[in-house]
Amino acid sequence: MQCAETRLNKNSLLLALKRYSSVVNNMEQTILLPSLLRDVPCEDAADCEAAENSMDLYECYHLLKVIRNTVESGLVPHDDSKVIKNAALHKSLEALLEADQEAFFYFHLRGLFSVMGNLTKMSQELTGKYLEIIGIDQ
Amino acid sequence: MQCAETRLNKNSLLLALKRYSSVVNNMEQTILLPSLLRDVPCEDAADCEAAENSMDLYECYHLLKVIRNTVESGLVPHDDSKVIKNAALHKSLEALLEADQEAFFYFHLRGLFSVMGNLTKMSQELTGKYLEIIGIDQ
Repeated sequence: MQCAETRLNKNSLLLALKRYSSVVNNMEQTILLPSLLRDVPCEDAADCEAAENSMDLYECYHLLKVIRNTVESGLVPHDDSKVIKNAALHKSLEALLEADQEAFFYFHLRGLFSVMGNLTKMSQELTGKYLEIIGIDQ
Repeated sequence: MQCAETRLNKNSLLLALKRYSSVVNNMEQTILLPSLLRDVPCEDAADCEAAENSMDLYECYHLLKVIRNTVESGLVPHDDSKVIKNAALHKSLEALLEADQEAFFYFHLRGLFSVMGNLTKMSQELTGKYLEIIGIDQ
């Protein structure tokens, strides 16, 4: 396996991870006063988990940074606090997937690719919202 | 993001992908006559998807190679034939996860890491089985 950088592509998981990292780095450099995001609700429930979980944009900002750190380190955390809360559903899925490692592989590969796209969009929207708050037109 | 090679670690997804690729390459170099695996059932149902899906070791061998090619290219296939067949369960899971992108991220990161471990083990066992068939003690 060559260096990951050499075979990036539009549908590549590695590119999606790299793109996310870059967008969050840009968000971090742009948002000089993150505290301005405190108590600002997320407006678009469809696009942002913040509304669903009653998070404000400040919490959302930190969440995106924590995920960026995980992405950049490449390490899979041992912490179990992040697993799906619906244990029954989780169990059904595990049982189903364990019988078919191929389906399991494609399911998680696509899933990770898809979530990186959503998180990238969240970070871009959050950066846009901050610029709006401080009165900078994009 | 630096070159992936520079920060490999025991719990790293990138290392798990690299390890799988290397084990399948070894399997391919060892198995000079894959046709000897035809009609050989997988013995251990718990460890191998072949038994579950009535695949023989020959089909299993090709499956592991196809997945290795996907891993090495890093590309996420568009083909929908590999998605989970249980549509209802898939839908419940998607709905649950869409509301929480953080849980979605950790779920798929861990899932992909875990399946790479299982597939690596399958490839090692298949190589061992081939050596047994041709009469080479390990």
